[in-house]
Amino acid sequence: MGAGLQPTREGDLTFAVDAPFRLEAGGALQPVTIRYAIYGELNAERDNAVLACHALSGSARVGDWWPEMFEPANKGAGAVFDLERDCIVCTNILGSCYGSSGPTSVNPATQQPYGPDFPLVHIRDIVHAQAIVMDALGIEHLRTVIGASIGGMQTLQWAVDYPDRVGHCIAIGTAPLSAMGLALNHLQRRAILQDPKFQDGRYLAGQQPVDGLALARAIAMCSYKSAELFGERYARKPNRNGEDPLRSLHGRFDVAGYLDYQGEKFVQRFDANSYLVISKLMDTFDLEHGYKSQLAALKRIEAHVSLIGISSDWLFPPEDVRALAERMRAAGVECDYTQFESAHGHDGFLAEVEAIAALVNRRVDAKRGLERAG
Amino acid sequence: MGAGLQPTREGDLTFAVDAPFRLEAGGALQPVTIRYAIYGELNAERDNAVLACHALSGSARVGDWWPEMFEPANKGAGAVFDLERDCIVCTNILGSCYGSSGPTSVNPATQQPYGPDFPLVHIRDIVHAQAIVMDALGIEHLRTVIGASIGGMQTLQWAVDYPDRVGHCIAIGTAPLSAMGLALNHLQRRAILQDPKFQDGRYLAGQQPVDGLALARAIAMCSYKSAELFGERYARKPNRNGEDPLRSLHGRFDVAGYLDYQGEKFVQRFDANSYLVISKLMDTFDLEHGYKSQLAALKRIEAHVSLIGISSDWLFPPEDVRALAERMRAAGVECDYTQFESAHGHDGFLAEVEAIAALVNRRVDAKRGLERAG
Repeated sequence: MGAGLQPTREGDLTFAVDAPFRLEAGGALQPVTIRYAIYGELNAERDNAVLACHALSGSARVGDWWPEMFEPANKGAGAVFDLERDCIVCTNILGSCYGSSGPTSVNPATQQPYGPDFPLVHIRDIVHAQAIVMDALGIEHLRTVIGASIGGMQTLQWAVDYPDRVGHCIAIGTAPLSAMGLALNHLQRRAILQDPKFQDGRYLAGQQPVDGLALARAIAMCSYKSAELFGERYARKPNRNGEDPLRSLHGRFDVAGYLDYQGEKFVQRFDANSYLVISKLMDTFDLEHGYKSQLAALKRIEAHVSLIGISSDWLFPPEDVRALAERMRAAGVECDYTQFESAHGHDGFLAEVEAIAALVNRRVDAKRGLERAG
Repeated sequence: MGAGLQPTREGDLTFAVDAPFRLEAGGALQPVTIRYAIYGELNAERDNAVLACHALSGSARVGDWWPEMFEPANKGAGAVFDLERDCIVCTNILGSCYGSSGPTSVNPATQQPYGPDFPLVHIRDIVHAQAIVMDALGIEHLRTVIGASIGGMQTLQWAVDYPDRVGHCIAIGTAPLSAMGLALNHLQRRAILQDPKFQDGRYLAGQQPVDGLALARAIAMCSYKSAELFGERYARKPNRNGEDPLRSLHGRFDVAGYLDYQGEKFVQRFDANSYLVISKLMDTFDLEHGYKSQLAALKRIEAHVSLIGISSDWLFPPEDVRALAERMRAAGVECDYTQFESAHGHDGFLAEVEAIAALVNRRVDAKRGLERAG
């Protein structure tokens, strides 16, 4: 199995048709559509469901963006997502442009795309919508909820908001964003907002602010990768197309050519208003939202929680993930923390999936061991 | 003495009037003007000159941007710049907008400001121009050349290009820029170039691309500070003006308000074309330029070299500064390396000058000790 693994089934669930779906920040959506994809089959006991949660620019098709998770992780071990055993469900998040309600969806009030009128969404809203999809799919309980980055935020929010519905929560490279992360996200949004083609978000399809969105993506790529990786890959090499960075203002080093290319690719597949909404929901995530305190929120958790920090991640530094694990344990949560050694920075969860999968398998096995012992 | 220490003398030296001043990247300037400021007096032996080199947005008035260096660094110790003992000279770098030839200067060919026609300058060009100013001031030998960041690049280039004219070279937070640094500089330049007010660099005075330049400055501020400092100062606090970052797309966290403010301040005092030229010369600095190899360049050095890395500096990581020190020693250079412990990131050389001054004093004393022993 490689990239492009086909889902067993996919579809759109539309709800909140007759009554609004109220959002954390005060707005509402009516109706809400959530795109989902299912890999494998729910068993008769309905106890084999695994929810995979995607990050900023992912889609419901986890088989496209995390295909290695469906492959045996290491010799003798099974896959993290085993189609014979598991029913893997993934939903596209609210605010995205890959099928679920988002800025590119039609606003029933105007019959035009929402654009900048799409309301602010919080991770809690995404998880709330996911829970409604799980209800519709007949999935009461999730054996595992797994995700990285914004995907990891969803897994943790599941464990807090629906404590009796999650068995094992696995979050990779996830914590409430630090000030540096908030800073970098803010600058990415500024890059989009400053592009004259942004037009207060009312750009037409095919006329989006590509320069601003590409710059935002390029800034983000710096935060997703590590200085070490950039040093190894690009060092001070001139751009591979032969430009001379020493002789002209516009001559680029190789790393600059790489970032520009990443930006160009991204604007072809992502919407600027969606980017703003999702970047903002990364900022607003914390686990105390809606509860009296973070401790009160964490005390609700019944799932076993496995937190994985990526050693070279400077968007979600491993220290922050470890600190979250400590707060969880202090709140009585059964929580393990593992540091994943990788030079790939935050993107390690996509760049080194085989190693992540092996590590996740160990956490899953340990969880099962605890269950047998318990 | 505080900020705004007046120079003993300042002025402009204009040269290359009759013949062009040829530049490393191939262009030329005719004439060249360099703004200089002098603090203290050259003694009869002309052996008390200290050249202070400024960083990206500094000026010849080192008394304005490094005033603490003129104050006793610690109890019982003298100042790094002692007006009774030293003659401190500082020149504004080529490309800047604070008096020396740069994009805002008049291009004699058109009688208009150079703007984007100002040629690419290399650190070697800046040092070459500085050497001409020293000649004109009757300064054959510099007891010390000191600077941080781009200032440090100048000190090292002095040691390589004019080996018999430098006694002690002190470079703080300086090394050839890593791939991550090149990446961040590239994105800053993109922010400026993408601003429609940039107009290919042909904007009129008072109509410069303030949004792009402010964004560039804000990106740079992230690279000048550290995640640790941002965490301590701003954490996840809402902007101090009372905005609610959780309830609207445009509501900012405190760190975002800080970065925007830094950008707004900067555009009032700096020129976008100058920023492009100086950002680029930070990129192109390496010590092998113009020589057969880096080793061949380093072998030319006769000065004692003191390199100081700042522990939390991620624009010029201390590992890179230490590695440069090792290459120097391997080339036979008398070189010491000190790590300055600071949470302030690259900006530590401006944010914690007293501690830096104390550290520099120790290096200067050690150098004198070596002289006495030698």
